[in-house]
Amino acid sequence: MIDADTVKEAVRQRKAKSESFLGFEYFRFSDDFRDVPRGTAVFQDAVIWGYPHIGRIFVLERGLKEQFKGPFWVEEKVDGYNIRVFRTGDRIVALSRGGYICPFTLDRIGDFIDLNFFEDNPDLVLCVEVAGPENPYIEESPPYIKEDIMVFVFDIMKKNSKEFLPQEEKLRLIERYSLPSVEVFGLFTHEEIPKLKDLLYRLNEEGREGVVFKTKDRRAKYITSYANLSDIRITAKNMLQLPPEYYTNRLLRLVLFMEEEGIERTEHLYEELGRAFVDGLFEAIDQFKREHKVYKTFRCRFHKKENAIALLELLQRTSRHIQVIERGLEEENGMWVLTFDKVFLNMTGLLGHLLGGGLVFD
Amino acid sequence: MIDADTVKEAVRQRKAKSESFLGFEYFRFSDDFRDVPRGTAVFQDAVIWGYPHIGRIFVLERGLKEQFKGPFWVEEKVDGYNIRVFRTGDRIVALSRGGYICPFTLDRIGDFIDLNFFEDNPDLVLCVEVAGPENPYIEESPPYIKEDIMVFVFDIMKKNSKEFLPQEEKLRLIERYSLPSVEVFGLFTHEEIPKLKDLLYRLNEEGREGVVFKTKDRRAKYITSYANLSDIRITAKNMLQLPPEYYTNRLLRLVLFMEEEGIERTEHLYEELGRAFVDGLFEAIDQFKREHKVYKTFRCRFHKKENAIALLELLQRTSRHIQVIERGLEEENGMWVLTFDKVFLNMTGLLGHLLGGGLVFD
Repeated sequence: MIDADTVKEAVRQRKAKSESFLGFEYFRFSDDFRDVPRGTAVFQDAVIWGYPHIGRIFVLERGLKEQFKGPFWVEEKVDGYNIRVFRTGDRIVALSRGGYICPFTLDRIGDFIDLNFFEDNPDLVLCVEVAGPENPYIEESPPYIKEDIMVFVFDIMKKNSKEFLPQEEKLRLIERYSLPSVEVFGLFTHEEIPKLKDLLYRLNEEGREGVVFKTKDRRAKYITSYANLSDIRITAKNMLQLPPEYYTNRLLRLVLFMEEEGIERTEHLYEELGRAFVDGLFEAIDQFKREHKVYKTFRCRFHKKENAIALLELLQRTSRHIQVIERGLEEENGMWVLTFDKVFLNMTGLLGHLLGGGLVFD
Repeated sequence: MIDADTVKEAVRQRKAKSESFLGFEYFRFSDDFRDVPRGTAVFQDAVIWGYPHIGRIFVLERGLKEQFKGPFWVEEKVDGYNIRVFRTGDRIVALSRGGYICPFTLDRIGDFIDLNFFEDNPDLVLCVEVAGPENPYIEESPPYIKEDIMVFVFDIMKKNSKEFLPQEEKLRLIERYSLPSVEVFGLFTHEEIPKLKDLLYRLNEEGREGVVFKTKDRRAKYITSYANLSDIRITAKNMLQLPPEYYTNRLLRLVLFMEEEGIERTEHLYEELGRAFVDGLFEAIDQFKREHKVYKTFRCRFHKKENAIALLELLQRTSRHIQVIERGLEEENGMWVLTFDKVFLNMTGLLGHLLGGGLVFD
C-alpha cells in the first residue's frame, strides 16, 4: 500500500494530483515519486500501481546472457497503448499508462473481454495492450489489425501490489476466461537463441513490433527493425516534439537488429529509411500549403456518445503542443463514430515561419 | 570599442576569460554578452569582434523577398571553418570562431595569403574560410579540394568595429592583393531569382555547400541538399553529441530545397539519405568491435613542429566529450605531418553498454 502521508507529500511536490472524471475520484501520480511509479492511481478502496518501465536490449544474444541467468518466457510485444483494467465498486475502470481514466477503452473493453472475469477476481488488474487503426492515441497500428481495435492481455497484477502474477497463473486465467492475449512463444533457454533469432526474423517480416522477455523478477524488451522504421515514418510530421535521442536510438536499434539477424544492407533498406524520414515531411509541407496547419485525423468507435465527448475533453485537457479539434460525431451501424484532428502546433509554427521566408539562427 | 568595465563584468559572469597562448595575452568572450558576440577577442591594442551569427532561409524565393528589399550580393558559402586573420605588433594572429588562436591556421596562412596585405592595412581583419581534407577541425571537405587545405576570404572587418567593409571595397582589396576568395556570383535582383535557382542547382550538382546573400546591413545563407546530406553522413559517428534539432533542421532543409528546385524524390535520393544515416553507424559498430572505441583520424601539415604540438594541446584543452590522441608527428617533404584521433566518448560509451548487453530505459 501507499500511506496517506506519501500521497500528501507527492501532491505537495506536484508529483500527484487529485482527479475527478466520469464520476471517479482518485489521486494520480503524474511522475515517479520515491518508489511509486508514474501512472499509479490511489482509489478509496485500492491502489493500482503504475505499470513499470521495462528496459530494452539492443543486442539479442549478449543482452539475454547479461540480463537472464536461467530460462525466460518470450511473448509478443504488440504496438499499441498500455491499459490497466479492473473493477471498483460495481464499475469497470481502464487506466492509461499515465494514470488517466480512458473513456474510449472503458467504452469498448467489454467487446473484447468477458467482464465476468472481475466478478470472480475482484482483486485482479488486467494489463492490456490496445492496438489497431481506430484508436485515439497512437498512429501506429499492427498491419494484421485491419479495422477498429483489438486488445491483448499481457500481464495480470493484484490491487495494492506492484507484483505481477506468476506466468503460469496468468496463462491459466487467460485460458479459463478465454481472454485475448499477446502470443506467448514459450519458455526459452540460452541454448535456444538461434531459434529466437529465427522467430524475430519472422516477426520482422510480418510487421510485428518485437518481444518481451520475462522471468519472475526481470523483464526486458527487444524490437524489430520493422517497428523502428515504422516509428520513424509515423513521427515525421511531429518531429519537433520528440526528445533528442528518439531518432538516434531507433537508428542504432535498426542497425544492430540488422547486424544481429544477418539482414543485408540492401539498397531496399536504405531507400525505405530515407523514405521514412522524408515522406512525412513532404506531406506536412503539402498539408501546410493547403490548410495552413499540420495535423493527423483520428477516428474511433464508441457505444455511448458521452464517452466520445469525455475522450475529446480528456485529450484537449492533457495534450501538450497539440490542438485537438473535433471533426464529427455520428451514428453509424449502431455505434458512435468520433473523428478528430490532432494539430501539431510546433511543426505548424515552424513551417509557417520557414515558408514565410523567415530566418533561422542555428 | 568595448570598455574595461564590460570586460570585467563579463569575466565575473564567466562569459569572458583571460587567455594566454603562444605568447599572446587577451580576453576571449566565450559566450554572447550584452552586444558582444561570442568569439570576440580583446587584445591590448585592439578589439577583434566576433563573427556574427548569420540566419538561414529555408526557402529561396519567399525568403529573399522577405529579407531583402533591394538587390543583394550572392557569394559562395564554402564548407570549412571560420577564421579571422590580422596583425598585432609584428605578429600575425588567426582566431577561430570561438576566439581561440589557431596554431594550425597561423602556421599555414602565409602559404595562401600575401601577408604584405597587413603591412599596408594594419587595421584590417580578414575573415577567411579554411577548408580541405587536411584540416584539424571538421571532417567535411569540399569535393573539389583534393588534398591539404585552401583558404577563401569572404569578408573584411576593421579592428575595433563590428562592421564589415562595403562589398565594393572588399572586392577591390581582394583584387589588389590577389587574395584567394570565395566565388562572388554578383549582385542579383529579385527578378533574377530563376537565374539564382539555376545557380543553386549547379552548385548542388558540384557538391558545394550553398550561398550567402549580403547587403550593407543584412545577411542570410541558403544551403544545398548536397551539403545537408553530407552533414548527416559525416556526423553519424558522433550522433549523440548533437543538439536535438540538428537532424530535424537538415531534413527540413533537404526537403524544402528539393521542392523549390523541382528535384524529383527519386529512389536514388531516398537511398542516399538512408545510407547517410546508416553507414556511419555501421562503421562505428565495426570500429568499436575491433578497437573498443569510436573515432576519426585527422591529418594536417605544418611548417613548424611547435605549432603542431600547440594545436594538439589546444584541442585537448578545449574538446568536450572528445578525447584527442596523437598518432604521429613526422617530417615529410619538408613539412611536419601531424596525425591524431578524435575519440567520440559518448558513442564509445553507449556502444560499450549496448554491445555488452546492457538495458536502456527510454
